[in-house]
Amino acid sequence: MSKKMALIATKGTLDMAYPPFILGSTAAALGWDVQIFFTFYGLQLLRKDLDDVKISPLGNPAMPMPVPMPVFAQMLPGMESMATMMMKQKLKAKGVASLEQLRELCRESDVKFVACQMTVDLFDFKREDFIDGIEYGGAATFMKFAGEADVCLFI
Amino acid sequence: MSKKMALIATKGTLDMAYPPFILGSTAAALGWDVQIFFTFYGLQLLRKDLDDVKISPLGNPAMPMPVPMPVFAQMLPGMESMATMMMKQKLKAKGVASLEQLRELCRESDVKFVACQMTVDLFDFKREDFIDGIEYGGAATFMKFAGEADVCLFI
Amino acid sequence: MSKKMALIATKGTLDMAYPPFILGSTAAALGWDVQIFFTFYGLQLLRKDLDDVKISPLGNPAMPMPVPMPVFAQMLPGMESMATMMMKQKLKAKGVASLEQLRELCRESDVKFVACQMTVDLFDFKREDFIDGIEYGGAATFMKFAGEADVCLFI
Repeated sequence: MSKKMALIATKGTLDMAYPPFILGSTAAALGWDVQIFFTFYGLQLLRKDLDDVKISPLGNPAMPMPVPMPVFAQMLPGMESMATMMMKQKLKAKGVASLEQLRELCRESDVKFVACQMTVDLFDFKREDFIDGIEYGGAATFMKFAGEADVCLFI
Repeated sequence: MSKKMALIATKGTLDMAYPPFILGSTAAALGWDVQIFFTFYGLQLLRKDLDDVKISPLGNPAMPMPVPMPVFAQMLPGMESMATMMMKQKLKAKGVASLEQLRELCRESDVKFVACQMTVDLFDFKREDFIDGIEYGGAATFMKFAGEADVCLFI
Repeated sequence: MSKKMALIATKGTLDMAYPPFILGSTAAALGWDVQIFFTFYGLQLLRKDLDDVKISPLGNPAMPMPVPMPVFAQMLPGMESMATMMMKQKLKAKGVASLEQLRELCRESDVKFVACQMTVDLFDFKREDFIDGIEYGGAATFMKFAGEADVCLFI
């Protein structure tokens, strides 16, 4: 019987958007049965358009910066967009797949995407903003899968 | 034999305060045996008074904002309190239970709360600030439960 | 057969640097077989010199502060270094082991450290900046260990 992995994706920033899709596609490639439950800010990762997925250096002194920059400069207007642009260029230059590509790889490998209905309602997300083929459910349904999983991670 | 879930709650912000109590009460409702280990900022969630549990838009560009706002405006005095107030109003308007209610639901369902003694000492928390009926322990004790658990999550 | 624990360390701040080393050394002391996969900002924890591992109060209203401080003051120049210095003094005064000590304890207990090769390349980390005796690998290799583990946590 194949291994199972259950992921709970709660973050919606560019850096923390990678782990669910990388781990999901990797496990699927190993033949595992994978489900990802998208909740809280993680719902941003189900949008058709991922251009608004950004990164912020604020509050994360561990982020390697191309140019050392004092905290007060990090919050100048446009700095978030600039950090996002620089990170995307770096990812591209190093040959790392884009979020869209990794998400598509998950879909092609039959990774199941579940959107948390409660958070969808809370943040007034619209189903038409999300990609097709996802399911909507609650924590209880997901927990049943998680309880049988070999690996379960809260991201 | 019933399933077991072990949660490690390390965050103390309003958004990340929900997952341990939602997952804990959901699993308990399914008949699971649940323990939550509160450590680092997660200890804030054991306070009798949860009014100081706040949310911050800083460093989280994924937070859906009612009004788009540049980063430098997010750090004006009072903005953290305003974001917290708006989030609480949204939760209430959408019929989501309060943190206090979900925590109480966990207690009534026999979810076991363990406070990390090391962090209690480190941050000078006082036992009288915490709710009654919680245990105090270390990582080693908790790991024994975690090692038998079907699901173990670091939140 | 001994229990197994797989940790994924993705954060590089002073506060979130503790959990992988505390959980790793604790599990090892209980006789568990432990592997830690360092990826994204977590790679900062493998540097020979951990002096640059800092903490930031920004975006974390749950951090207990010795002196209440408005958000705009938290981002004044030098405030990140001051918060880091104060946290280190507190840890020392309370007798909590340093990161270096806990990391060494993990090493002496045969906790296996794996650096994520993809992130090493992405952020241009140099192998000579890292401590000796670590392995380099990808998510797929680590997933095989994780699939056999009793506890697997994403930190």
